[in-house]
Amino acid sequence: MREFRQPGGEYSYVYSPYREPIATIPQGEPVAIYTIDAFGDAIPDESTLPSKTLGPYLNPQTGPFFIEGAEPGDTLAVRIENIEATRDWAVSCTVPFFGGLTSTNLTQMLQDPLEERVWLYRRTPENTWQYRDKWAIPWAPFFGTIGTAPLIEAIGALAPGDHGGNMDVPDVTIGNILYFPVKHPGALFYVGDAHAAQGQGELCGVALEIAAKGTFTFSVIKGKAIAWPRIESPERLMVVGSARPMEDAARIAYTQLIKWMVDDYGWDKLDAYQLLSQAGGCYVGNMVDTTYSLVASVAKSYLNSH
Amino acid sequence: MREFRQPGGEYSYVYSPYREPIATIPQGEPVAIYTIDAFGDAIPDESTLPSKTLGPYLNPQTGPFFIEGAEPGDTLAVRIENIEATRDWAVSCTVPFFGGLTSTNLTQMLQDPLEERVWLYRRTPENTWQYRDKWAIPWAPFFGTIGTAPLIEAIGALAPGDHGGNMDVPDVTIGNILYFPVKHPGALFYVGDAHAAQGQGELCGVALEIAAKGTFTFSVIKGKAIAWPRIESPERLMVVGSARPMEDAARIAYTQLIKWMVDDYGWDKLDAYQLLSQAGGCYVGNMVDTTYSLVASVAKSYLNSH
Amino acid sequence: MREFRQPGGEYSYVYSPYREPIATIPQGEPVAIYTIDAFGDAIPDESTLPSKTLGPYLNPQTGPFFIEGAEPGDTLAVRIENIEATRDWAVSCTVPFFGGLTSTNLTQMLQDPLEERVWLYRRTPENTWQYRDKWAIPWAPFFGTIGTAPLIEAIGALAPGDHGGNMDVPDVTIGNILYFPVKHPGALFYVGDAHAAQGQGELCGVALEIAAKGTFTFSVIKGKAIAWPRIESPERLMVVGSARPMEDAARIAYTQLIKWMVDDYGWDKLDAYQLLSQAGGCYVGNMVDTTYSLVASVAKSYLNSH
Amino acid sequence: MREFRQPGGEYSYVYSPYREPIATIPQGEPVAIYTIDAFGDAIPDESTLPSKTLGPYLNPQTGPFFIEGAEPGDTLAVRIENIEATRDWAVSCTVPFFGGLTSTNLTQMLQDPLEERVWLYRRTPENTWQYRDKWAIPWAPFFGTIGTAPLIEAIGALAPGDHGGNMDVPDVTIGNILYFPVKHPGALFYVGDAHAAQGQGELCGVALEIAAKGTFTFSVIKGKAIAWPRIESPERLMVVGSARPMEDAARIAYTQLIKWMVDDYGWDKLDAYQLLSQAGGCYVGNMVDTTYSLVASVAKSYLNSH
Repeated sequence: MREFRQPGGEYSYVYSPYREPIATIPQGEPVAIYTIDAFGDAIPDESTLPSKTLGPYLNPQTGPFFIEGAEPGDTLAVRIENIEATRDWAVSCTVPFFGGLTSTNLTQMLQDPLEERVWLYRRTPENTWQYRDKWAIPWAPFFGTIGTAPLIEAIGALAPGDHGGNMDVPDVTIGNILYFPVKHPGALFYVGDAHAAQGQGELCGVALEIAAKGTFTFSVIKGKAIAWPRIESPERLMVVGSARPMEDAARIAYTQLIKWMVDDYGWDKLDAYQLLSQAGGCYVGNMVDTTYSLVASVAKSYLNSH
Repeated sequence: MREFRQPGGEYSYVYSPYREPIATIPQGEPVAIYTIDAFGDAIPDESTLPSKTLGPYLNPQTGPFFIEGAEPGDTLAVRIENIEATRDWAVSCTVPFFGGLTSTNLTQMLQDPLEERVWLYRRTPENTWQYRDKWAIPWAPFFGTIGTAPLIEAIGALAPGDHGGNMDVPDVTIGNILYFPVKHPGALFYVGDAHAAQGQGELCGVALEIAAKGTFTFSVIKGKAIAWPRIESPERLMVVGSARPMEDAARIAYTQLIKWMVDDYGWDKLDAYQLLSQAGGCYVGNMVDTTYSLVASVAKSYLNSH
Repeated sequence: MREFRQPGGEYSYVYSPYREPIATIPQGEPVAIYTIDAFGDAIPDESTLPSKTLGPYLNPQTGPFFIEGAEPGDTLAVRIENIEATRDWAVSCTVPFFGGLTSTNLTQMLQDPLEERVWLYRRTPENTWQYRDKWAIPWAPFFGTIGTAPLIEAIGALAPGDHGGNMDVPDVTIGNILYFPVKHPGALFYVGDAHAAQGQGELCGVALEIAAKGTFTFSVIKGKAIAWPRIESPERLMVVGSARPMEDAARIAYTQLIKWMVDDYGWDKLDAYQLLSQAGGCYVGNMVDTTYSLVASVAKSYLNSH
Repeated sequence: MREFRQPGGEYSYVYSPYREPIATIPQGEPVAIYTIDAFGDAIPDESTLPSKTLGPYLNPQTGPFFIEGAEPGDTLAVRIENIEATRDWAVSCTVPFFGGLTSTNLTQMLQDPLEERVWLYRRTPENTWQYRDKWAIPWAPFFGTIGTAPLIEAIGALAPGDHGGNMDVPDVTIGNILYFPVKHPGALFYVGDAHAAQGQGELCGVALEIAAKGTFTFSVIKGKAIAWPRIESPERLMVVGSARPMEDAARIAYTQLIKWMVDDYGWDKLDAYQLLSQAGGCYVGNMVDTTYSLVASVAKSYLNSH
């Protein structure tokens, strides 16, 4: 299997159409991509404070990759075959004025910041991630940040959007297929920000950050454009909406899921609205700045019942 | 078992301290309470349009009940022993300018309303709820609206808040214990709005509305005040936050869950923030006006691991 | 001129249909109503801290008044003839977890509160309000809280809404006419929370709070219902929208202003939308919890130009 | 006076650090810059519908300009000396799913769009802008979009942010000084989107769009970094905050205005918070997607009174 690392450590901190592809990947062939953690692997212990250590850029991405055959107006399908941690520790922390239960650079207040603190987790033989002699989190890996280049914008790797990006959605995991819009030849795919696990909401803004090796198989759906990222698991269809305020993220996720049901499965729009009222799922991916992500979903078992 | 119905059909459309209790209920004894549906049972078929049928008040509540021994500053614990549908049909519908994917009286726009339509579901022998020959929804009953009287406000039965009310949270179901603040002698408990099932978000604003018989056991935790409604299942602790915008509901739910962990289980505040970042759950109860409800949760198995 | 004070000091902390009127007021006759300040006149110096002094209720209102001839479905017009301070000092303060640039009970975070502090202002001979030897604020009085009883809810005096209430809008001032919905016989009018002045947004949540004597003339527009409070100055038409998030308040204010132009002045809906795009005014009344108020306006000089 | 036009009509649709400067401008010397309208001058009459005419990009910007002497960490000061319309007509319109009182691509709903319509205005000899024989809007010109290149992002010209961009704030006008962060050598200044006038909120999303000639004088404040765009008029200090939900824009604007008062004028933080509570101004610049802009302000006459 071919393996890809970012050449020269020149990671990208934006989802950008203005960077040259680092490699070309054919459709249908599993490949491995290596990622470093959201802090550039720079916080290896609990005495290293983020505010004293980190530079102006966070969340380094591997890419962009040119996917053979992808053209504007297509949809890129990315199957996640596997995710492996390439080290035996994970790190989380509080960062001043960053997170879900603190004022931030976008929700500004006059209060002092929360205490800055680092939590270091060790992988156990049972493949849980253990914080000191306290709690252990089961291995539930996924990529927090993944997607394709926007049309003309270069969007920071901390932001999610209709291009994917920093969605922080636990369903971006092994066995699921992701769908992204293609705006440029080759789609210009990026990935990074692997997590050993994360709660819904990524509450403090930092999951169990790990360096990782992901295995992906790419394919292209020709001539079909989608507006927002989609996820397909063996059991469910999902759409990720990213916006502020959070209700706008929920509205996007559900509206686009209805559109999926109407376009691909022949549902009447109001019948789909009705079914999701009784059977839809909706959880918070991230509630931390810069933009919130919500996931709307429906069981595939309903899809032919209209 | 004692059974209670609203005397004279004089249901309450507010969670109010200004109504006399309809009955007194002792602690520790299971009782049955009958509720009618959110439309006052007035939409029994698909040709009855809500806009032509419904009056100015929606969501009739049974109550208030005086719970023996409850005093201001206590917490009321309500265990839901059972929920039974008292009829074999459920109804949902679109209501003009009401719902999650339409402009509303609080999110006003200049566009025309969506089409008004009624969906009638029939209970099957397998205890699913069948819409025509199309889809069937499994029985997953809960009470959409439940809680205690506010301190001085009378809050409409369509609104959720720190008193409970119209939270539309599917975890308000059989086997779970709900906790509400007590602001008045007797707590002044109300309940209504039973649902045969509902998706996360209650997308169109109307679940599978049923008339129901609920069985409840009440108890009082003396001298302990809580700020927002809590739910305890056999597996999880949950808090329901209700606010707009939706991120404020999420902030309330997670902040109060941290407070629960700190106050009752001895967690350090930042450690609880950290654990929930990796292991918390957060789903949308309702995303329909007037106020959104989100549910934050944590598995009880973590509670002693700090 | 007849004068009214709250009998027995039994002020109301809710806009409620569940209180008996304290007096009946005929149409067309100026009357005086006395109000105390939002803290019940309990913070007379800078060493009296709100958190140590205030009870569970804030913002005492004078009322309700029964306005002769007002019936449900009518509109109540209230002309403010005059506002006089009944004392020579005004008070403002920070209150823990209350205000526009701090986390609050609805926007909950884990940070510590801001410092609690009191600012006492003295009226000068030039009728400005002087803080120590520092800044002086010109007299620009208005009532922060004013309106009619809701249909079935009793709404706390700290909240604004379609009934009026705690809008904190500086245009509620001398020479302007306010319009409120009438939901009950006699309208059930309340007023309180006089301010010597206030900035747009009422940033820290507390204006220059004063006790006051207001002079009002009431009249009733028969058979005309309005949905949200309106203000008419000699120069402008205004609508106050109150909601969260703040964009919903702006949407309500502008949508209802368009409705006013369409219903009363014969504008085409899209033409009104267009005119306001080029000539509308929109400022923040209050950005402090519980609910934000925005004011949309248009110059009367445009009203016949369609 | 030197004059600048975009070479080859290759306007920029992003505020980007990835474009080469089109010219170098020295400090202290007034220069003229020509801009075309937000639709690329493509809607010259009322029968040209936007949805049939416009391409994927909107809001062409002139730039970037390299301002001599500007280095990262400095502040760029831009004095607007003059704004002249370079044609005698202005255009506004409704665009499907764009605007303040309609569902949009970020506030998605299931309703049909509003009617698409064009309003063409003609300049009169009195320098008002006349719509047919109906209303006339006084000349009150400003640039809707103006700012500097972000650090690593390329941000679409329809979005405002801490770089400036599409703020749509009427105070960006003749006689005022704007201050922007400098993130790159030469600052990389862009400008476009001139308006003959606009209401507060830019309600339908389209102002009186004109082609224009702006006259600007640039200067650089060395070694002083600001976080958000500032405006100084002869009378007032202003900060523009851009965010969603709208309350976050208000919080940014007021917090940064307090910071300005503290850093440059020696105010105590809580005293500044207090003064703005009584004397601050706060109006809506734009309430149309993609991000809202609010302007907080204070009269300069207060600045030395602490």
